[in-house]
Amino acid sequence: MRESTPVSMSATLAADEALARRRRAGEKVLSMASGEIGLTVHPALRERLAAAAGESAYGPVAGGHALRAAVAGYWGRRGLGIDPGLIVAGPGSKPLLFALLLALGGDVVVPVPSWVSYAAQARLAGARPIPVPIVPGQGGVPDPDRLRAAVAEARAAGRDPRSVVVTVPDNPTGTVASPGTVRRLAAAARELDLVVVSDEIYRDLVYDTSAPAESPALHAAERTVITTGLTKSLAVGGWRTGVARLPDSDIGRALHTRLVSVASQIWSSPPAPVQTAAAYAFGEPPEITEYVAAGRRLHETVVRAVADRFTAAGAALAPVRATCYLYPDFEPVRDRLARVHGVHDGDGLARFLSERHGVGVLPASAFGEPGSALRIRAATSRLYGDTDEQRTAALTAAEPLELPWIRGAVEQVGEALSDLVRTATGALSPQS
Amino acid sequence: MRESTPVSMSATLAADEALARRRRAGEKVLSMASGEIGLTVHPALRERLAAAAGESAYGPVAGGHALRAAVAGYWGRRGLGIDPGLIVAGPGSKPLLFALLLALGGDVVVPVPSWVSYAAQARLAGARPIPVPIVPGQGGVPDPDRLRAAVAEARAAGRDPRSVVVTVPDNPTGTVASPGTVRRLAAAARELDLVVVSDEIYRDLVYDTSAPAESPALHAAERTVITTGLTKSLAVGGWRTGVARLPDSDIGRALHTRLVSVASQIWSSPPAPVQTAAAYAFGEPPEITEYVAAGRRLHETVVRAVADRFTAAGAALAPVRATCYLYPDFEPVRDRLARVHGVHDGDGLARFLSERHGVGVLPASAFGEPGSALRIRAATSRLYGDTDEQRTAALTAAEPLELPWIRGAVEQVGEALSDLVRTATGALSPQS
Repeated sequence: MRESTPVSMSATLAADEALARRRRAGEKVLSMASGEIGLTVHPALRERLAAAAGESAYGPVAGGHALRAAVAGYWGRRGLGIDPGLIVAGPGSKPLLFALLLALGGDVVVPVPSWVSYAAQARLAGARPIPVPIVPGQGGVPDPDRLRAAVAEARAAGRDPRSVVVTVPDNPTGTVASPGTVRRLAAAARELDLVVVSDEIYRDLVYDTSAPAESPALHAAERTVITTGLTKSLAVGGWRTGVARLPDSDIGRALHTRLVSVASQIWSSPPAPVQTAAAYAFGEPPEITEYVAAGRRLHETVVRAVADRFTAAGAALAPVRATCYLYPDFEPVRDRLARVHGVHDGDGLARFLSERHGVGVLPASAFGEPGSALRIRAATSRLYGDTDEQRTAALTAAEPLELPWIRGAVEQVGEALSDLVRTATGALSPQS
Repeated sequence: MRESTPVSMSATLAADEALARRRRAGEKVLSMASGEIGLTVHPALRERLAAAAGESAYGPVAGGHALRAAVAGYWGRRGLGIDPGLIVAGPGSKPLLFALLLALGGDVVVPVPSWVSYAAQARLAGARPIPVPIVPGQGGVPDPDRLRAAVAEARAAGRDPRSVVVTVPDNPTGTVASPGTVRRLAAAARELDLVVVSDEIYRDLVYDTSAPAESPALHAAERTVITTGLTKSLAVGGWRTGVARLPDSDIGRALHTRLVSVASQIWSSPPAPVQTAAAYAFGEPPEITEYVAAGRRLHETVVRAVADRFTAAGAALAPVRATCYLYPDFEPVRDRLARVHGVHDGDGLARFLSERHGVGVLPASAFGEPGSALRIRAATSRLYGDTDEQRTAALTAAEPLELPWIRGAVEQVGEALSDLVRTATGALSPQS
């Protein structure tokens, strides 16, 4: 007998749908809740998909050879060479992560905070997530010492942790765990006999390209699975394409067999036309790497501008080094928020920004943090324009902050924050 | 603590990959193991996908409104009108079926025989499948009386069956449960408080269009979920598109909430460009209904020719009324197969046909039948040609059996069966 698993809607997708409804109703809302990348598909990529529209066969469960070879090349150029036979493609890195949890079995350690779906997926897979806090300022990687303690405690209680999920670079914090922390995590995982599932979908969005994110696969090669996709770098979330790199080891080969079996029963194969377009993109021709670089610069510029507004409002914010996310902490102004607005936690903070100022963000609770945390996640990725013209202009602008729609968005955030941290209660506006 | 779920590769996809390897190695193999439809995408459908290549946003988890409205129209034309808000689209009907099992919770009754993935999906979802035999000659629907007995027994043993899967028309048998049987199944499901998950992906492939398959949704409207997709009618399996129609009832609305939540955590949304093409197809413009009709006639013609070979060889075969599948039973010639070839069961039969004659089929065990069953499933859907030219010729031919590649395939089946049921052992050929 099996109970229904408690499951709630993905917080990002739910917030996105709610904001879209308000926007359709004519409200001036800023969608900063989800990390969907609001940019236009590169024309060459779009043309590859169009040309592949006649491809309608399933092909291999793990994806066709051309795609897997291109993906192996992508990782090879990052010092992570791999046999294409150990690549598994799927309809998004989200389904791949879920299938990995099913294939691995056992319970799974997740960092706190971490992406909204890891813990939900673990529960759907019949596992219990084991939350372990990050090292402050180094999101995405559970503190290795606390990891040891949590796994020991879980095992003593009869539980069976078998894997740890990490996010490098990190969502929601926009930070990147240091090489030292990643090395210590890898050592702890080996010592504890845990498989490391390293979600590296933001890998190519580290602002300082001379200091790339360190993958745990460099230090625990035999037990690290890496996942990525084109969603974040190439703004094709709606295409549904993701890939996993399994380790070249006994662990990796056994997991490959189980992962492909799970995939065969759940989704059959990745969408065929998308595979062809993805193979082209993972080959990284110059026009594609230039697009990725332009997107990275755009994120950095807008993230820094928004970060300035948050720090000006008194929020604490670890330096954002990658992605399109900010994760400000309003603890330094807790008393004021409570006194002036009756805001006591992240949920109240998100509600205030969304309902009063049309700035849609997510509370820290969506990322597994305690309800009391006065933190929210804000994404800049939907501020780049509403039309293809605006988005293309944003991607190619020397000074994106001078584009009126981006400047207006940053100002809307600034005004919302000014109101949030004002010192007197004053008269409340009639809207609630 | 959670054990790893035992999981094996989808039998159809595994067989397909093995046959593809042999074919690449130069062997003359007939792929009759999987029901992948070997036809060319309709040009208008292909063009719709190509034109949508720039669509890269996730959109709503359940699929965009245009697609859901088109799907509601599709069902409305079949006497099953529904609010588009109760339609959920996903990346294939396979993921939708899996997500439904996760959302429903509890154990699930599956017919015997039935499609290879229902039972595997149930196990992955943490449920135990409860097998219930069909009424002979009416595949896809558990015998309603046996269903009552099995559910009573399971509940007495402390298990918690909450749903029953049916396949109308049926894979693997190519039969269609009678309206009376479907009505009795619906009544039993209501009496037992089971949700009916009705996989109707072969609905438009019933040969006699004046006698369509009866959906249990007509008789247990409040508790029947229907799934379908374009894979079988329009030969776009590799596109990954499926849809579910949830009942307009308290049961349906509660399940919709859970299903969309599960979908949001596992796959986000169906591929955006494919949604646009699918919306066009579910609108059923004349060129699309003509393509579906041509495919249906082609399946019928080739299935009947292959069925004649099986019955000529002494196999029993319920009249095939739909799909591209045959499910012959060699029980009448059991003694001969044992004596001449040492073939004692479906696995031996499949091995004999595949290894000695290059005719790839699946044994009954893949469909949940006992190992002793001397039955196999053969699909005709890959016999229509290897090139777009051949496949288009097959679809448009007045006499497809006169096309040399189809005639050759049918003859290869006939020769394999002649060898199978010959009466003397003779000298074994050197290949094994």
